[in-house]
Amino acid sequence: MGRLTKMQDGFGRGIYDWHMGREGVEIGERDDGWIDTTAGPGTYFTEYAEWRPVVQEAADMAAGRVLDVGCGAGRVALHLQSKGLDVMGIDVSPLAIKVCRLRGVKQAKVMSITEVGPALGTFDTIVMFGNNFGLFGSFKRARWLLRRFRNLTSPGARIIAQTLDPYDTDQPGHKAYHRANRRRGRMGGQIRLRIRYLNYCTPWFDYLMVSETELRRIVAGTGWRVARILRQDQANPRYTAVLEKEKPS
Amino acid sequence: MGRLTKMQDGFGRGIYDWHMGREGVEIGERDDGWIDTTAGPGTYFTEYAEWRPVVQEAADMAAGRVLDVGCGAGRVALHLQSKGLDVMGIDVSPLAIKVCRLRGVKQAKVMSITEVGPALGTFDTIVMFGNNFGLFGSFKRARWLLRRFRNLTSPGARIIAQTLDPYDTDQPGHKAYHRANRRRGRMGGQIRLRIRYLNYCTPWFDYLMVSETELRRIVAGTGWRVARILRQDQANPRYTAVLEKEKPS
Repeated sequence: MGRLTKMQDGFGRGIYDWHMGREGVEIGERDDGWIDTTAGPGTYFTEYAEWRPVVQEAADMAAGRVLDVGCGAGRVALHLQSKGLDVMGIDVSPLAIKVCRLRGVKQAKVMSITEVGPALGTFDTIVMFGNNFGLFGSFKRARWLLRRFRNLTSPGARIIAQTLDPYDTDQPGHKAYHRANRRRGRMGGQIRLRIRYLNYCTPWFDYLMVSETELRRIVAGTGWRVARILRQDQANPRYTAVLEKEKPS
Repeated sequence: MGRLTKMQDGFGRGIYDWHMGREGVEIGERDDGWIDTTAGPGTYFTEYAEWRPVVQEAADMAAGRVLDVGCGAGRVALHLQSKGLDVMGIDVSPLAIKVCRLRGVKQAKVMSITEVGPALGTFDTIVMFGNNFGLFGSFKRARWLLRRFRNLTSPGARIIAQTLDPYDTDQPGHKAYHRANRRRGRMGGQIRLRIRYLNYCTPWFDYLMVSETELRRIVAGTGWRVARILRQDQANPRYTAVLEKEKPS
């Protein structure tokens, strides 16, 4: 998904309204017609003390110069900045970036994950919280971006990315969607969706949810290795992957 | 809107899930792309004690044999039945009617408002709570149905119907919609919408919201007169119209 126009910024409009005290509801629509409210916009404003311990632990692993991909309302960027880290947040939503700046994020840019390049300098940590591993989009694109991120990061760099195992569900509608995805040559958890908020609506985009096995297949051979998997508990499909750079062979 | 098929029953599926303890979110989508959560399904289960006093007062005006049009989860039907009234509830949603029966509504039928006819017998009160004046659909259809209801009711009969003044809003998106409606020859508050719940989705249907002035224009010459307008307060766009039969001239 590229940078959003005003009427496409369903994601940022909800964030902006919430910031201004108007508590609306963000809606996610999948391309098979499945529709539901998301966790946002409220959760995009939570503070470190409200996060689950495992998310706090993951955030604590960020160090040095940090790139926050899909920074939303800036909750992670603000926390890391308050710890003295040098953080740059990027998001395709102009209104999300506006809210980041209003809330005090010092470096916030309207930019897509595919636009991340050498002009931004070198990073020690790339964070993708709130299921933002999904922004990798597809198997192929994830591998392409991981290789690119390798060249934009320092030798000891980490990628800290959250996702959830899409197959850890009893919902027949979700299982049927995963099967249909595979039939058309996509990963099961490659969710095509759009975010809607009042009369604002993003374009359709692919948001990638992966099992741990799929994650390892994606990462293999990209110059990164899965250093840790953090889970709150086995009953929760959410987890955080910590990737570290492989030593040059 | 005619009787709903299984996958069209977005409205009833939410009600059924709620009844079974699964609290989902009902979503309303307008034909200009405006989307938001509705008050349901939770509010379809509220009890008399939870209703605003003005709604209690309106419900108290029901007497004799009652037809509840768009009875939903049966909240009004159950209340009137508990007071000893003879109540029949109808709804286009098979799952709503199923829940009505599970909750103890004695007479509940899957039936559209346009299917109401002499086979049901004669009614002393027709109730349309929860904005269900909207089920009249359009100016023309409302007048046609009011005339028909005249022939299906006793001499002292009442229609008790809730609506809201659509023009009592500051939202530019709603105002633009009302103007666009008028340009295409519709009433401003003739909202074309569909109800969505997970992967269930009703067909598009017209739901009619009217100002008091529009209400009076619709009712004039149908054999009914506006006997009372009940409002909680002037700041609230919601109101209840009590129609009574005109004496034959």
